[in-house]
Amino acid sequence: MTDALLRSAFSLPEGIIYLDGNSLGALPKVAAARVQRCLMEEWGERLIRGWNDSGWIDLASGVGDKIAKLIGAPPGSVIAGDGTSVNLFKALNAALDMAAKRETILSDIGNFPTDLYIAQGVAQRRSGLSLKTVEPDKVADALSDDVAVLMLTQVDYRTGRLHDMAALSEAAHELGIVTVWDLAHSAGALPVDLMAARADFAVGCGYKYLNGGPGAPGFIFVHPEHQAKIRPALSGWFGHEAPFAFDPDYRPAEGAERMKVGTPPILSLAALDAALDLWEEVTIDEARAHSIRITSVFIEAVEAACADFGVRLASPRNAKRRGSQVSFRHEEGYAVVQAMIEQGVIGDFRSPDIMRFGFAPLYNSSDEATEAASVMARVLSDRLWDEPRFRTRAKVT
Amino acid sequence: MTDALLRSAFSLPEGIIYLDGNSLGALPKVAAARVQRCLMEEWGERLIRGWNDSGWIDLASGVGDKIAKLIGAPPGSVIAGDGTSVNLFKALNAALDMAAKRETILSDIGNFPTDLYIAQGVAQRRSGLSLKTVEPDKVADALSDDVAVLMLTQVDYRTGRLHDMAALSEAAHELGIVTVWDLAHSAGALPVDLMAARADFAVGCGYKYLNGGPGAPGFIFVHPEHQAKIRPALSGWFGHEAPFAFDPDYRPAEGAERMKVGTPPILSLAALDAALDLWEEVTIDEARAHSIRITSVFIEAVEAACADFGVRLASPRNAKRRGSQVSFRHEEGYAVVQAMIEQGVIGDFRSPDIMRFGFAPLYNSSDEATEAASVMARVLSDRLWDEPRFRTRAKVT
Repeated sequence: MTDALLRSAFSLPEGIIYLDGNSLGALPKVAAARVQRCLMEEWGERLIRGWNDSGWIDLASGVGDKIAKLIGAPPGSVIAGDGTSVNLFKALNAALDMAAKRETILSDIGNFPTDLYIAQGVAQRRSGLSLKTVEPDKVADALSDDVAVLMLTQVDYRTGRLHDMAALSEAAHELGIVTVWDLAHSAGALPVDLMAARADFAVGCGYKYLNGGPGAPGFIFVHPEHQAKIRPALSGWFGHEAPFAFDPDYRPAEGAERMKVGTPPILSLAALDAALDLWEEVTIDEARAHSIRITSVFIEAVEAACADFGVRLASPRNAKRRGSQVSFRHEEGYAVVQAMIEQGVIGDFRSPDIMRFGFAPLYNSSDEATEAASVMARVLSDRLWDEPRFRTRAKVT
Repeated sequence: MTDALLRSAFSLPEGIIYLDGNSLGALPKVAAARVQRCLMEEWGERLIRGWNDSGWIDLASGVGDKIAKLIGAPPGSVIAGDGTSVNLFKALNAALDMAAKRETILSDIGNFPTDLYIAQGVAQRRSGLSLKTVEPDKVADALSDDVAVLMLTQVDYRTGRLHDMAALSEAAHELGIVTVWDLAHSAGALPVDLMAARADFAVGCGYKYLNGGPGAPGFIFVHPEHQAKIRPALSGWFGHEAPFAFDPDYRPAEGAERMKVGTPPILSLAALDAALDLWEEVTIDEARAHSIRITSVFIEAVEAACADFGVRLASPRNAKRRGSQVSFRHEEGYAVVQAMIEQGVIGDFRSPDIMRFGFAPLYNSSDEATEAASVMARVLSDRLWDEPRFRTRAKVT
C-alpha cells in the first residue's frame, strides 16, 4: 500500500523509485490517452477543423485557468504556452515598462541560470540597466529605490529553499519595485497565493510538478491591474485582439490574452491540459501536507543512515522553508547519484556537490522515501559509487 | 491509383479531399508512431533519462538539420523550436543589431500579419525605427539606404505569389540591407536555396508543408557568416555554451545553437522530427514538379467549370511565380468554402474574399484537384453556398 495521493493515476516503470519529478514529472495515464486522441482523432481525422471542433484555439487560456487555481490567480490571468524563459522575457519587459526608470533588476545568486541569462539579455538592450544578484538571504536588505524590478524564483532549484513571497513582495512594493516571480518549482508542489502576495508578474514551468511532459509549455501570470497597460514585447498574432481578421496593425487582445504570441504546440499543450485534471481529485493543501510528510521522512532516514559518510543536508530543515525537494551535499555527489540510479533510485545532481531528490506528492510515498535513504546508505557504505563509469558526466545531468 | 508522391505514408480520413495542408499538414503515420513511443517508452519508462538516452537534448538541432536540407542551408545553421513569431523576433533583433543605423524595416502589405506585428513591436522598442510596408510588387523599388532590414515572406499566404528571393536579396545587399525571410509557405513546398540567395536570416513553420502537427515548432536559420556575431535577444540556457554547467553568466553557444532559448516541447518536436523523415523518400524537386502539375490541373479545371459564377484566379498563373497553393476570389468566398467543406473538400478562407486551396505534393493528387474543382462547380451552380449556416464565421477561419 502506498500513501502517495494518486499513484495509480501515473504510468511509472516497475522497480524504480523516481525522485526527479522536480526536473521532469512522471507520465499521467490521462495525458498519454489525451495525446493519443489528439494525434489520431483531432489531428488525423479532424485536421484543420481541430482548431474549432477540438478546442485547440482555447487551449492556452484553458490550461492557464487550470494552473491559475493552483497558484492563487483569478481566471483569465494566466496564459500557458511558450517556455519559461520566453515567458520570463515577456514578464521582465512588461515589468520594466511599468517600473520607474531605475538602474537595477535585482535577483539572487541562487536563481536558476536561465532567469539570470534572460535578465542579462534584457538589461543589455535597455540603457542604464543592469542585473544585480545577492545571496538569497540578503535580498530583503538589497531592496532600494535603485531597484526597478525584483526577479526571484520562489523555490531554489538546488537547495529547495523557499523565499517568503508575501513579505518580499510587500517590502518591494513599499519601495515602488515591480515583482516578477518564477514558480518553476512551486506550481503543483505547494500552495501559492499570487493575489494575496500582490505579485505583479509570475512565470512557471509545465514539466515539473505539473507533469506536462518533456518540454511542456510554461505559463505567465499578469496581475489583473496591469493587464490592460501592457504593450507586449513579443507582439504576435495570437495575442492580437482579432487574430483571424488579419489586420495589418497590431492591437493587443483583452487582458492577459495579449501575452500569447504564436500558435502553441498543441500535442504538448494537450498533455499538460490532461495532466492538470489530476488536480480535480486532490487539493494543493493535501499535496503540500503529504510533501512535507515524505520529505521529512527522507531527511530523517538519510541523516540516520548516512551522516557518517559525509552527507550534509543542503535544504532547510524547517519544512515550511523548503519546497518539495530535499538536497544533500556530498563531495562525490555526482557519482553517488549515478550509483543510486543504477540501484533504481532516480535523483539528479547539480554542481558543485548537490544531490537532489524531488518528491512529487501525487505519486511518491513515505515508503519510497525510506527505501531511497536505504539505497543511499548502501551506496555509501559499500562505496558502490567508486567506479570510473559513475564519474563520466552525461550531456544532461 | 493516386499520383500523390507518398499518399500511403499519411493517415487521412476517408471521403475527404484535404486542401488545407498550407494551414495544417496531414498526419504522417510515422509521426503518430513516434509520438506514441515518445510518450510511453521515452517519457513513461525512461523518464528524465530520456534527455540523454532518447536524444531529446539533440532534437532541436537534429530537426534543424533535417529542415536545412530542404531549404539550401548547411548543417548546423538551422535550429528548430519556438514558434515562427518568436523566431522572427530573434531574427529581427539579430538583423537589426548587425544592420547600419537606419530608420526602416521594409516589408510588404501582403506579409502574414504576425510578421508585421512582431516587427511593429521590435521597432517600437528601438528608437528611430519604424516598419514600412509597400505593395508586394513595389518592394524592389522601395529598397534604399534608409532601409536597415528587408523582411519578407517568400510565398504570400493569401495569393501564393512568390517573391524572387535571390534577386531581392542581391538588390538588398547592394544597399547594405540585411535580409530576413519567412519560409512559412515555402519549406517543404518548393526548393529554397538560402545559401545561393545569400539570405542572412530565415524563419519558418513546422506545421504546414512539413507536417509536424498542430502548433509544431518553427525554425530559424542564421547564415554561417553571422552566427558568431550574434548576441541573442532571447538569451536562454539552451543557447548557453554549457547549459548544464549552471554558470551565473550568459555565454552564447557556438554557432546557431545560441538561438535556442529554453527546453523545447519534446512531444511536438518528436512529431516534426518523424514527419521530416518522409523527405528521405522523395526530393524537394520531385515535390515541386508534382505541386506544379496538380495546381495547374486545379486552375484549369476551376476556370473551365466555374468562371461563369464570378470566380477569379488570385494566384499567379505562371507556376514559377506561385507556391503550392491556388487561391480564387469570390464575393461569397467564405460561404462557398464552408459549403465545399460540407461536400468533403477542405480549403479555407482569408479576408476579404480569398478561397484558398493548398496542395501538398506528398499526399494530394491530380484526381483530387479535378474532383475538388467539380465540387466547387456544383456548389456554385446549385448555389449550395447560399445557406445562413455558411455565413456564420467560426472562431478560427
